[in-house]
Amino acid sequence: MAGEEFGTGNFNPNDTKRKTITCKAAVAYGPGEPFVLERVLVHPPHRMEVRIKILFTSICHTDLSAWQGKNEAQRAYPRIFGHEASGIVESVGEGVRDMKEGDFVVPIFNGECEECKYCKCEKTNKCERFGVDGEKKVMDCDGATRFSTMDGKPIFHFLNTSTFTEYTVINSACVVKIHPNGDRDLKPYIKTLTLLSCGISTGVGAAWNTANVHSGSTVAVFGLGAVGLAVAEGARARGASKIIGVDINSDKFIKGRGMGITDFVNPRDDERAVYERIREMTGGGVDYSFECAGNLNVLRDAFLSAHEGWGLTVLLGIHSSPNLLPIHPMELFQGRRMVGSVFGGFKGKTQLPHFAQECMNGVVKLDDFITHELPVEEINEAFDLLVAGKSLRCLLHF
Amino acid sequence: MAGEEFGTGNFNPNDTKRKTITCKAAVAYGPGEPFVLERVLVHPPHRMEVRIKILFTSICHTDLSAWQGKNEAQRAYPRIFGHEASGIVESVGEGVRDMKEGDFVVPIFNGECEECKYCKCEKTNKCERFGVDGEKKVMDCDGATRFSTMDGKPIFHFLNTSTFTEYTVINSACVVKIHPNGDRDLKPYIKTLTLLSCGISTGVGAAWNTANVHSGSTVAVFGLGAVGLAVAEGARARGASKIIGVDINSDKFIKGRGMGITDFVNPRDDERAVYERIREMTGGGVDYSFECAGNLNVLRDAFLSAHEGWGLTVLLGIHSSPNLLPIHPMELFQGRRMVGSVFGGFKGKTQLPHFAQECMNGVVKLDDFITHELPVEEINEAFDLLVAGKSLRCLLHF
Ligand SMILES: NC(=O)c1ccc[n+]([C@@H]2O[C@H](COP(=O)([O-])OP(=O)(O)OC[C@H]3O[C@@H](n4cnc5c(N)ncnc54)[C@H](O)[C@@H]3O)[C@@H](O)[C@H]2O)c1
Ligand SMILES: NC(=O)c1ccc[n+]([C@@H]2O[C@H](COP(=O)([O-])OP(=O)(O)OC[C@H]3O[C@@H](n4cnc5c(N)ncnc54)[C@H](O)[C@@H]3O)[C@@H](O)[C@H]2O)c1
Ligand SMILES: [Zn+2]
Ligand SMILES: [Zn+2]
Ligand SMILES: [Zn+2]
Ligand SMILES: [Zn+2]
Repeated sequence: MAGEEFGTGNFNPNDTKRKTITCKAAVAYGPGEPFVLERVLVHPPHRMEVRIKILFTSICHTDLSAWQGKNEAQRAYPRIFGHEASGIVESVGEGVRDMKEGDFVVPIFNGECEECKYCKCEKTNKCERFGVDGEKKVMDCDGATRFSTMDGKPIFHFLNTSTFTEYTVINSACVVKIHPNGDRDLKPYIKTLTLLSCGISTGVGAAWNTANVHSGSTVAVFGLGAVGLAVAEGARARGASKIIGVDINSDKFIKGRGMGITDFVNPRDDERAVYERIREMTGGGVDYSFECAGNLNVLRDAFLSAHEGWGLTVLLGIHSSPNLLPIHPMELFQGRRMVGSVFGGFKGKTQLPHFAQECMNGVVKLDDFITHELPVEEINEAFDLLVAGKSLRCLLHF
Repeated sequence: MAGEEFGTGNFNPNDTKRKTITCKAAVAYGPGEPFVLERVLVHPPHRMEVRIKILFTSICHTDLSAWQGKNEAQRAYPRIFGHEASGIVESVGEGVRDMKEGDFVVPIFNGECEECKYCKCEKTNKCERFGVDGEKKVMDCDGATRFSTMDGKPIFHFLNTSTFTEYTVINSACVVKIHPNGDRDLKPYIKTLTLLSCGISTGVGAAWNTANVHSGSTVAVFGLGAVGLAVAEGARARGASKIIGVDINSDKFIKGRGMGITDFVNPRDDERAVYERIREMTGGGVDYSFECAGNLNVLRDAFLSAHEGWGLTVLLGIHSSPNLLPIHPMELFQGRRMVGSVFGGFKGKTQLPHFAQECMNGVVKLDDFITHELPVEEINEAFDLLVAGKSLRCLLHF
């Protein structure tokens, strides 16, 4: 039985299909308030939806920012956060053809409906219906939630996914089936593949799809969390000759060496501006810089670290403040460019299965991204680890 | 004799070579102060410099902004403005190999030294030594000026060129020889080719080189001066299916029709935001928008008029205020991009001769850009025409 294959023990889809499931979830009741582990109701999937038994979920900085609730317009409680996970399809709603019970899947917060004008265009991985929308908190088809408290109050969804729960319901546009490569056994890869759900795909994809880093080029990565280090690993795989890592936490440099980072800059080590140091190290600036810290000053440093004439800055970090881009219009005349990258530019449903194969083939080395593993009951400790800069990704299991 | 060929009458280079020339120039003595027509001294060209007898010069909005002196750091007086011109080489300094006396040339404010790392890179038309620098006011090799008043005080240069004068001295990196196509007579084209020196190349090049407008695409041009209309003409030549012109001066729409503009929007005609109207006209936004007005609010409208997911905004206008880009970092996640374009992305020395041939072959239609012609003595009236929005380009002759 599919469930057993993945070592999920007594999971039997037929027991639960079309029924409301009662299960464990980590529920947030207010900005920055500790998560409450409690039993919740998870309703059956509607048309084109998928109910998934989560195997592992991890914590991305985007969960942290959303949980802290800095952007007031995006607050909604009670809510189930989490968007980086892997799981097994428990049941599918009417109309779902590309997945069935027992399939191994990863949720994607940036969906692909395969029907809107963006999904049909090769230039973007945006989706009209299932793009990133921090204010969205209910299911698309009926504006209702599939979660409720034991006494029947709705619990809101997050980022098309909501994975801090044993079971979740997601529109099939935001769920990707990972195909085993012929007779390859997926089991040894499941933990790592969990990170394809956000951090790894976002970072590697920003280097491959958005920037299209070329062999021999120079790169600077600002912020060496999982996202930044995945950028570095993607740039290494592309043959970049110099990959400069920038972080205010020098502990990150240890991990960084294994992921292709060749040089480190700690902004606090030196009075000079970071961009000046990087220009000096590279004879004028890097070909590609990546902002993965979510900080406007860092964004400006990243912009000015790129080489005049052709340097490209890729923005990945989430900036909740309503400030303007820290760039003067005339600075664009120096030929530096800046673009944003969501989910690494990957069209999830179309491209993630192949990317998963590349990961399993060792094109990028992902084992070191999982630094911790805890039971979901310790989710508050797991958040502390991320806040303290001690973890890259902490896997939570149910 | 070369001079006669171009109808310049009694011009004989051999009379003046290696001597200081006394000639007429329009000198600016302070921000916004009327130009003074007076006799000035023009010294012989130094090594790698070229002295040019100006045939025609015209007035670009960049001259207007610089003359108004809004950017205090860029003020320097007395000064000879002007950067859009055509002329005949009077004499060349030591080392100049690609031009000789009598050649028909156009000055380029964005030079090409052909030796720096930018000039050697195909990704940019920036030049390390002869790029655009509003604060530069002297010759590159010795930090001195080649102009002086009759009583010997230096008169400053402008934008690598200074063309509001009968004779000027320019580094050869900023002078392009226009080759006649086999036996083609250049004479009928001289007035039009004058505009290749800035406005036409800037606009057409922004559409061709910077944006790479594709056939069937949709375009919006903000600001229908010579630069904006040249963008439209470039987009028309590329087969754009819809070219929306935006201007607060509806008189510009008349000229616009002949240059491929299919639809017009006057922001003052309607209370709705311009970007909303453009999105409505194009089913979500244009593929390419161009800001050619030099106004930050217009820049934001141009940005928001571009289609989410792939729309590109090309910034051409000069924004003298030190404000930030009117874009929130998170807005980049919607997939809109913005890039700057200087001199239309053309590498002047390498690419302008071929572009000139294309113009003479009628690939773009340029006759309507010259709306007025006046003797240089009426330069103040010519500025008034531009300020009042009555001219596209007014040719001044000596
Ligand atoms: N664009 C997307 O699709 C997408 C997807 C996932 C995450 N994100 C965003 O990417 C960013 C990184 O996510 P993560 O999970 O790797 O976060 P993380 O917390 O693991 O890593 C952030 C790193 O930035 C460093 N940092 C903080 N301030 C800094 C400064 N001033 N200078 C240099 N380094 C600094 C921290 O020390 C840390 O190592 C976050 O903003 C997150 O919201 C974006
Ligand atoms: N990037 C470059 O290499 C380069 C080269 C040449 C010129 N420029 C700049 O390009 C811009 C255009 O130059 P030009 O010579 O065509 O100027 P112009 O004065 O002939 O034309 C400007 C046009 O913008 C219109 N306009 C002004 N405010 C507007 C508004 N709020 N909304 C819509 N339209 C508005 C005016 O009515 C006018 O038709 C200037 O800023 C100039 O400095 C840049
Ligand atoms: Zn994430
Ligand atoms: Zn879609
Ligand atoms: Zn100009
Ligand atoms: Zn150069």
